[in-house]
Amino acid sequence: MTNNKKVNAAILIIGNEILSGRTQDTNTSTIAIWLNSIGVKVKEVRVIPDIEETIIETVNLLRKKNNYVFTTGGIGPTHDDITAESISKAFGKEYEIHKEGYKILKAYYKAGEFNEGRQKMIWMPQNADLILNPTSGAPGFSVENVFCLPGVPSILKSMLGGLKNKIVGGKPILSLTISLKTVESEIASSLTKVQNDNKDVEIGSHPFFQAGKLGVSIVIRSEEQSRINNCNSQILEFVNQKKIEVVIR
Amino acid sequence: MTNNKKVNAAILIIGNEILSGRTQDTNTSTIAIWLNSIGVKVKEVRVIPDIEETIIETVNLLRKKNNYVFTTGGIGPTHDDITAESISKAFGKEYEIHKEGYKILKAYYKAGEFNEGRQKMIWMPQNADLILNPTSGAPGFSVENVFCLPGVPSILKSMLGGLKNKIVGGKPILSLTISLKTVESEIASSLTKVQNDNKDVEIGSHPFFQAGKLGVSIVIRSEEQSRINNCNSQILEFVNQKKIEVVIR
Repeated sequence: MTNNKKVNAAILIIGNEILSGRTQDTNTSTIAIWLNSIGVKVKEVRVIPDIEETIIETVNLLRKKNNYVFTTGGIGPTHDDITAESISKAFGKEYEIHKEGYKILKAYYKAGEFNEGRQKMIWMPQNADLILNPTSGAPGFSVENVFCLPGVPSILKSMLGGLKNKIVGGKPILSLTISLKTVESEIASSLTKVQNDNKDVEIGSHPFFQAGKLGVSIVIRSEEQSRINNCNSQILEFVNQKKIEVVIR
Repeated sequence: MTNNKKVNAAILIIGNEILSGRTQDTNTSTIAIWLNSIGVKVKEVRVIPDIEETIIETVNLLRKKNNYVFTTGGIGPTHDDITAESISKAFGKEYEIHKEGYKILKAYYKAGEFNEGRQKMIWMPQNADLILNPTSGAPGFSVENVFCLPGVPSILKSMLGGLKNKIVGGKPILSLTISLKTVESEIASSLTKVQNDNKDVEIGSHPFFQAGKLGVSIVIRSEEQSRINNCNSQILEFVNQKKIEVVIR
């Protein structure tokens, strides 16, 4: 489903292991790319610790400021998995066994394996909607505009497809990248002119190293292909004038 | 320098390319690991777009809530590099050419190469302290407790060493990881008991995949080695009882 309004989201990464630097977050990029493709723009990402008060406060702030909030982490079976209980408190809902979730997990595990730890994973806010998990059984859940996903990247990835019909996006955000064998300072003033001529388009300049050589990727982002094409022409004009080589990345 | 107080920091990642998912942030992990080693704990990370108003508001909030703030990104030569000007406004300081920075960059570039784009990189808040850049010349800067670093990971990494004497940390945060060939649900209740017996210690449980097999890393974090050792003994006790294999990662 799409509409013509701007649709925004925030991503909330919950986990001490990201804040300590032990684990490198990769879920932000996964979720953001997927959201772009369905016309939702990520306005903000926050990483917070496994502290109930912080989770409640941050979720309640972000869900009012954004059309959608996606949380990752803290929905597993161990003591440090406190996202579901915290979300229940954020919405003032009971934290209880989800009946449908219970049936799903009971069927998923062999007889005798559906132990206390595993049962913790289907304790959720009352009347939460399930987000099915094709990889490892235990579902995520959503309450109103807040969608709670696991922290393990491969499991999270496998669950996004099932969410698509629950998200109403705007126009997809299109992008075009032009990579150049140059340094930013050589093109800075010309690029500023293009940006000033096209204030409705987002033009980013990002240095990169490739095979030991410096380069710059210019990323043009807009909901309108024609606006991207217009910027592209203006950029290629100064690129040709300056005899800068375009490279493939 | 160290003291015995808790010392906290926030990391502020500035850049549309992270929010769009195009670029995977790796600076959070780099900065957090380095800060841990000098006794500073990261309490919060935020990723925000290249929008002046958002940068000003977020910096002014985070610098009051934390002992230190580290920003990454937005200090290059192009139009989308607006961190230095935004930080100037956040502190109510003039945005101007930094005389020492000017000398450094003028000496760094060959005659005729110190063009307008490059000169933009030494426009900073009045009286900012420089953070030297051994990789590519252009310095970062700090104002009071806010330290502004570039977004390119290799350059950022090379600049952290020079910052050490400007940060007064607390006791370094120690950690010990025990990796087990098991699943979280098998150890969840035993681990909860250890956490309840040691409320001053942070115990995290993190599932992993290695060579196609599931495992769990238990991470014990504290400023006191003796507290870590105590938890370690209690954990190894139930691990032995349950005949769970300890693995090397």
